[in-house]
Amino acid sequence: MFELVRNSEMPLVDQICERVTHLVRHGQLTPGTRLPSIRKLARQVSASPFTVVDAYDRLVARGVIESRAGRGFFVTPRRLSAPLVAIEALEEPGSDAMALARLCLANSADIVAAGSGFLPENWLLETTPAAVLTRLARGRRAQAFLPCPPQGLPELREQIATRLLQHGIAASAANIVTTYGASQAFDLLARILLSPGDTVLVEDPGYFVLFEQLRAHHVRLVGVPRRADGPDLAALEAASRAHRPRVFFMQTLVHNPTGSSAEPPNCHRILSLAEQYGFAVVEDDVYGDLYEGRAVRLAQIDALRHVIYVGSYTKLIGPALRVGFIAADLGLVTRLIERKVLSVLSGSTLLEYYVYEVLDGGRYKRHVDQLRTRLARMRRDARAALSAAGLEFDAEPGEGMFLWGRVPDSSVSVDALVRRARERSILLARGSVFSPAGGCKQWLRFNVAHSTSAPLTQFLRESLRAA
Amino acid sequence: MFELVRNSEMPLVDQICERVTHLVRHGQLTPGTRLPSIRKLARQVSASPFTVVDAYDRLVARGVIESRAGRGFFVTPRRLSAPLVAIEALEEPGSDAMALARLCLANSADIVAAGSGFLPENWLLETTPAAVLTRLARGRRAQAFLPCPPQGLPELREQIATRLLQHGIAASAANIVTTYGASQAFDLLARILLSPGDTVLVEDPGYFVLFEQLRAHHVRLVGVPRRADGPDLAALEAASRAHRPRVFFMQTLVHNPTGSSAEPPNCHRILSLAEQYGFAVVEDDVYGDLYEGRAVRLAQIDALRHVIYVGSYTKLIGPALRVGFIAADLGLVTRLIERKVLSVLSGSTLLEYYVYEVLDGGRYKRHVDQLRTRLARMRRDARAALSAAGLEFDAEPGEGMFLWGRVPDSSVSVDALVRRARERSILLARGSVFSPAGGCKQWLRFNVAHSTSAPLTQFLRESLRAA
Repeated sequence: MFELVRNSEMPLVDQICERVTHLVRHGQLTPGTRLPSIRKLARQVSASPFTVVDAYDRLVARGVIESRAGRGFFVTPRRLSAPLVAIEALEEPGSDAMALARLCLANSADIVAAGSGFLPENWLLETTPAAVLTRLARGRRAQAFLPCPPQGLPELREQIATRLLQHGIAASAANIVTTYGASQAFDLLARILLSPGDTVLVEDPGYFVLFEQLRAHHVRLVGVPRRADGPDLAALEAASRAHRPRVFFMQTLVHNPTGSSAEPPNCHRILSLAEQYGFAVVEDDVYGDLYEGRAVRLAQIDALRHVIYVGSYTKLIGPALRVGFIAADLGLVTRLIERKVLSVLSGSTLLEYYVYEVLDGGRYKRHVDQLRTRLARMRRDARAALSAAGLEFDAEPGEGMFLWGRVPDSSVSVDALVRRARERSILLARGSVFSPAGGCKQWLRFNVAHSTSAPLTQFLRESLRAA
Repeated sequence: MFELVRNSEMPLVDQICERVTHLVRHGQLTPGTRLPSIRKLARQVSASPFTVVDAYDRLVARGVIESRAGRGFFVTPRRLSAPLVAIEALEEPGSDAMALARLCLANSADIVAAGSGFLPENWLLETTPAAVLTRLARGRRAQAFLPCPPQGLPELREQIATRLLQHGIAASAANIVTTYGASQAFDLLARILLSPGDTVLVEDPGYFVLFEQLRAHHVRLVGVPRRADGPDLAALEAASRAHRPRVFFMQTLVHNPTGSSAEPPNCHRILSLAEQYGFAVVEDDVYGDLYEGRAVRLAQIDALRHVIYVGSYTKLIGPALRVGFIAADLGLVTRLIERKVLSVLSGSTLLEYYVYEVLDGGRYKRHVDQLRTRLARMRRDARAALSAAGLEFDAEPGEGMFLWGRVPDSSVSVDALVRRARERSILLARGSVFSPAGGCKQWLRFNVAHSTSAPLTQFLRESLRAA
């Protein structure tokens, strides 16, 4: 039927699968044809019968062939064909924010991902090495495959609590609930804390997916302008007085998209307003580990009374993991666990052990130190390259993985610029998506890891000069 | 300071961590004490400096010691202590169903898990071998750590579509959205399809977590009695006419808790009623692979017009994975993806590749065949043991992992029985939780893999005889 290549990099099992599939696809083996018996094919291709059993099993699993009891293996008859639609031929996403989220996650190697929210995978693979998986496979075999308690793996929650204590946040493992990334944390919190018609304060600009999540709960978003030293306090007070909000969602450190961090006095004032006007603060600290130096977080000075703290390891360990957490007071923890059970039943023990192993091994700190150094260099380089191409940046440098830049010429339509960029396989994130009121129209968010590429800077230079 | 044990099973790194932690915990190393330098400790314990570096890194990660730049390592000062609450000292769950869900997931090896919904981990570890993780670690290293497209990993969706075609269900990868288990599928569907006040039909008895999920959406549940051949058709028609439901959630095959499967004519009639009264059917097929022989599913005869199909690999591959999926028409798929982005952003590439590898390797079919054989034997044994202890079962044998048994003496309080069992570390699942109206008070659901244990049968025999 065919011959196998000895000494090939491709195992014999895969070679057999490939050859049979090829013969079926090209009509040389027609539907219903009986395949050679296991022993016969093994003799023909000089392989072990075990190899052929393995290959036939895989071909059955792939639907190429089928096994008929006592009669052998046959090419699958075409009883039924799949609906005639192009795969992925889906409608356009309903909103710009949704479109951007999906493009960031689409995972294409062929685009310049200047608008993406993720670090390049080769930056992350250094921390998430094969060794962790292999260790999981061996050492923790049974535990890593058990159901996960809905609150989260106790070992991981202990480890997170230890890290919070190091940040000065008084939390124990009992205060922590794990989530599938920060996104699930926001969704669970919105479902518990908010009712339709409530007013919620968010930062302007701020994290765009959060805005869409909150809108889906039919609440009213009121933006509080974000400054270099944190949220605008006068605006926060005015909004608190006028709207009696339920919750203020904010990022204290290494804010997305601006890279700014709130000053400690600003933090104190926010908490005073929260007390005075009776709102909760959800502190999104997804990027906080990228902050240089001694940080002050709201959760540290508030001790989880008005503050609900959200963290995640998805951004800095790996986007494939989807492990985040909420730290909150015990009353809220009970409600969060119940809501989590009703949404997803529980987390994944495998993912939570994975994060635990990375944190426990001491590898994480070194990794974050390296990321910070690398990001600082890339921020300088990207800022220089983008400035030369005609973008403008605020004087304050900021930190983390993003630069927040302005197209100075107001006659340039940033919407049109983003559309034209997409035709050249350049993903740009336009500022208006980051503004709850659709402001920031002349702004763009750049991922510094992807923003020094020649096609990007050349495209921007041409487009901004032409205008 | 201490000596290490050569030729111990515990690696030297772990021994150093354990000894230092012990000395700190017992006050022999007080907060602020400086630790020996790396080189010095390495000499003292005759280990490599790399071993000590690794141990110190781990101790820093665990918060036991801290590193001060240029000055060495110090026992962490007790600047702050965690709140003084017992870990896990949480309030009682709000409902019986929630209590049962949490006990099933609590993962304790010390209980007789007769009420659990999971298979024993050693049954599952045979299919989810270390080899899959090691293969992921090597072969797919980069891909398995990239972000996951929100619709789900294309390779996995292709594989699922192939399997659905083998079941006669005409679906392509474009019809499929992956979820964190069937639970997330139900939650996403409820959020898209239902509004507060809607009427939803469910089976009585049926899957108890689903009922709680639906109640959280403020819909009215109307139960349709489940018979040995499927839902009671007269009751279904009467409920459809009286309540104009939006959706009927049902399990065609290997129903939880009864083990029954709907007959094909019954399936046809359900679809006719769905057409006539304009409701959607969510077909929960989590246990369908355990069905013996040629199955007929609603999705097969309906071609995803009125039927939304939900599957999961969590039950039969491993509860640590949390990978399920929805197969639906393309219009609904678009809305499901958007809702998924707003709930959890995306799935986990690592988990989805894991399932893909298990399915692709052909191992899954053999595993399910073995499970079926094993479950058939355990069902017989458990039924005999429980009957001898005084339980009664319907004449129809049923399939899958559960037995649905009745306490014949109506003077016995099953609620009290379940409470007493818990004092003896026996987890029982009482029938009333499986009934949307709180019926089935004399019933219990038994997991056949855990129901032949002597402490269980002895407890039941004593309790039922005493009554």
